[in-house]
Amino acid sequence: MNLLDKVSTAKTNLTMLTDFYEITMANGYLENGFRDTIAYFDMFFRELPDHGGFAIMAGVQQIIDYLEHLTFTKNDIEYLRGCGIFSEEFMEYLSNFKFSCDVWTVPEGMPIFPGEPIITVRGPVIQAQFIETMILLTVNHQSLIATKANRICRAAKGRPVMEFGSRRAQGPDGAMLGARAAYIGGCCGTACTICGKEFGIPALGTMAHSWVQLFDTELDAFRAYAREYPQNCTLLVDTYNVLKSGLPNAIKVFQEEILPRGFRPAGIRIDSGDITYLSRKARKILDNAGFPDCKICASNSLDEYIIRDMLVQGACVDSFGVGERMITSSSSPVFGGVYKLSGVEDEEGH
Amino acid sequence: MNLLDKVSTAKTNLTMLTDFYEITMANGYLENGFRDTIAYFDMFFRELPDHGGFAIMAGVQQIIDYLEHLTFTKNDIEYLRGCGIFSEEFMEYLSNFKFSCDVWTVPEGMPIFPGEPIITVRGPVIQAQFIETMILLTVNHQSLIATKANRICRAAKGRPVMEFGSRRAQGPDGAMLGARAAYIGGCCGTACTICGKEFGIPALGTMAHSWVQLFDTELDAFRAYAREYPQNCTLLVDTYNVLKSGLPNAIKVFQEEILPRGFRPAGIRIDSGDITYLSRKARKILDNAGFPDCKICASNSLDEYIIRDMLVQGACVDSFGVGERMITSSSSPVFGGVYKLSGVEDEEGH
Repeated sequence: MNLLDKVSTAKTNLTMLTDFYEITMANGYLENGFRDTIAYFDMFFRELPDHGGFAIMAGVQQIIDYLEHLTFTKNDIEYLRGCGIFSEEFMEYLSNFKFSCDVWTVPEGMPIFPGEPIITVRGPVIQAQFIETMILLTVNHQSLIATKANRICRAAKGRPVMEFGSRRAQGPDGAMLGARAAYIGGCCGTACTICGKEFGIPALGTMAHSWVQLFDTELDAFRAYAREYPQNCTLLVDTYNVLKSGLPNAIKVFQEEILPRGFRPAGIRIDSGDITYLSRKARKILDNAGFPDCKICASNSLDEYIIRDMLVQGACVDSFGVGERMITSSSSPVFGGVYKLSGVEDEEGH
Repeated sequence: MNLLDKVSTAKTNLTMLTDFYEITMANGYLENGFRDTIAYFDMFFRELPDHGGFAIMAGVQQIIDYLEHLTFTKNDIEYLRGCGIFSEEFMEYLSNFKFSCDVWTVPEGMPIFPGEPIITVRGPVIQAQFIETMILLTVNHQSLIATKANRICRAAKGRPVMEFGSRRAQGPDGAMLGARAAYIGGCCGTACTICGKEFGIPALGTMAHSWVQLFDTELDAFRAYAREYPQNCTLLVDTYNVLKSGLPNAIKVFQEEILPRGFRPAGIRIDSGDITYLSRKARKILDNAGFPDCKICASNSLDEYIIRDMLVQGACVDSFGVGERMITSSSSPVFGGVYKLSGVEDEEGH
C-alpha cells in the first residue's frame, strides 16, 4: 500500500467537517468538569453491504492524515465565536488544541466483520468525541467501495477489473478516494488520471464514442488513433455496429497500422448491446484474423451479478471496466459504521 | 442562492480529475488537425431517480468554479510527459491552456427532465471534450442529492427537514456538496459545521447518546446541557426509555432549568423505536406538562417513504433529521447524466 500512502488528498482544512453537536458537546464537556476525563470509543458496524460474508477495511491513511493535521484555525474559531453560544475558555482550548488520543485500527485492506471494533480511540473525551464524524465518514465510504470492488473482482475470476466510475461518483472525493478504495479492493487500475498522479494507481483509457463520431468514418477514427498510440491500441468498436462495422474496421487498422509499426493490437472494447453474444463472435473473428492475443474489454453498467452471469454464459471477455455501480456501491450504497462510547477511565486508570 | 455562491470548495487543483481518455483524445485531436474545430456537446439524462416526475438541477456553481480555474500546472504536465505517449506540441498546448468555450446551463435549483439538454458547451473540441468528466461528476452528484432531498421535503409536507448525513456520505465532498445540494432541494439546514462556515447553510445540532452516557444519570446529562444551552435546548430522549425516563427527565429539566432562565424548551429528539407511537404519546405528555410549543424531532434512517407513512399514521413530528438515505440518495444512488457530441461547426460556422 505504499503508493497509496504518499499523498494526502486533504483539503486545506477539514477540521470543521464535523457535526455541529460534536462542538456543542465538546464545549459542554469542558464546562462540566470532563476536561481530563479519559474515554474509549469504538467504531464497528452491524450489517454487511449486499449481505456479503465480509467487508474490506479502507481509509486508514486518510484517518491518519486527518488526525495528524487536526487543528483549529483562527478563522474556524472566529466562526464558532460568532455562533454566540460557546465559552471563551472553550475558544482558548480550541486555539491550543493538540490531538493526543491513542488510535488503534485494523490495517488497510483487511477483511472486517460485523460487531468487531475496527477502530478504537482512547483519550480525552473532548477529543475522542470530536473526531467521530470524520472517522465514520472516511471509513464508511472507503470500506464500502473497497468491499464492492472486491465482490466485483471475485466475480471476474482473476480477469482484471478497471475502475471507470469518476463521472458518476458522489463528488470529487468520491471519485478519487473511491478509486483508491477500489484499488485496495482488488481493481487493477482506474480511468481517472488524478489517481494515477496522486496515488500511483495505474490510469488507463482509450477513446469515447465522440472520438469516433468526430471523424468522417469509423475507419478514419480508428486509423488516426492507431497511428497516435500504436504501442497500446484498444479500439471502441460499438459506436455503429460491432460485428458489421467496428470489428472489420478494427482488424483492418490492426493489419495496416499496428503490425507494420512492429506492435501487436492491445484490444477492443464493447460498451453496449448483448456483450456475451458479441464477445463470443468477436473472439472467433479476431482469432481467425490472426489476433488471438487481442484482448476483449467489456463495460456498460456492470456489477458482480452481471459479470458472473456473463461468464457463466461463456462470454469471451478478458477484462472489465466497471463504473457507476462500483464507485457508488450502487446495490448497497451505505456502510453503516457507528462510533460509540465504550468506557470511561476512573482516576486510577481502570 | 447567494449564500451558496460565495465559496469554492475547490481543492488546489482538480484539472487532472478527468478520465485518462480525455487526454489521449485531446492529444489525438491536436495531432489530427482538429485544433480549431468547433464542436457542441450536450449533457442530458435518460431516466429519473426513483421513477420520480422531475429532477432538480444542482452543482452549477461548482462547474463555474472549475471552468474558471481550469489550468495545467507544471506538475500536471510533468506527470503527463512522464506517460511517454504525448507529443511535445500537446504539452505546449496544455501549458498555454485557456478555457474559451461558451457554456449554457439550466439555472441551479430548476426542475429538469429526461432528454432535454441541461448543459450545452460550444467551443474547440479539445476543450469541450476535456471537461466531460468534471461536468458529469459535478452535476450528476449534486442533482442526485437535490432531487432526493426534494422528494423527502415534499413527503414532510412543509415540516422542516435537516440534513444529518455527513458520517455516511461518500467522502468529504459527498458530505459538503451533498449538504449544499440538499439545501437547494429544500432542506432547512444541516448538521455539518463546515457547511455553515463555508456555504452559510444553517448548521444545527443537539447531543449524541454518548453525552447522555457520560454523565452518571440521564437527568444529570440533560441538566448540564440545559444550563449550557438554555436558549435552544433540544434533548435526545431515547438513550434509555423515551416514555419512562427520557421524557419525564426532559420535562423536569425544562421546568427547573429552562423556565427559570426565561426561555422556553426548544424540543426533544427521538432517534429509535416506533417513532410514530412514541411521538403521539410524547405530544400528549408535553402538552399536559404545559409545553405545547416544544417541538418533536425525529431521526433514524428516514426517507420519503417512511416519512409519508409516519404522517399518514398520525405521527406528531414537527421536524425530521434525515441522514444516510438522503446524503447518498440510497434508494437510487446514481444520476446517469451523459455528455454527448451533438454537432460540429463547418468553416462557415454552421
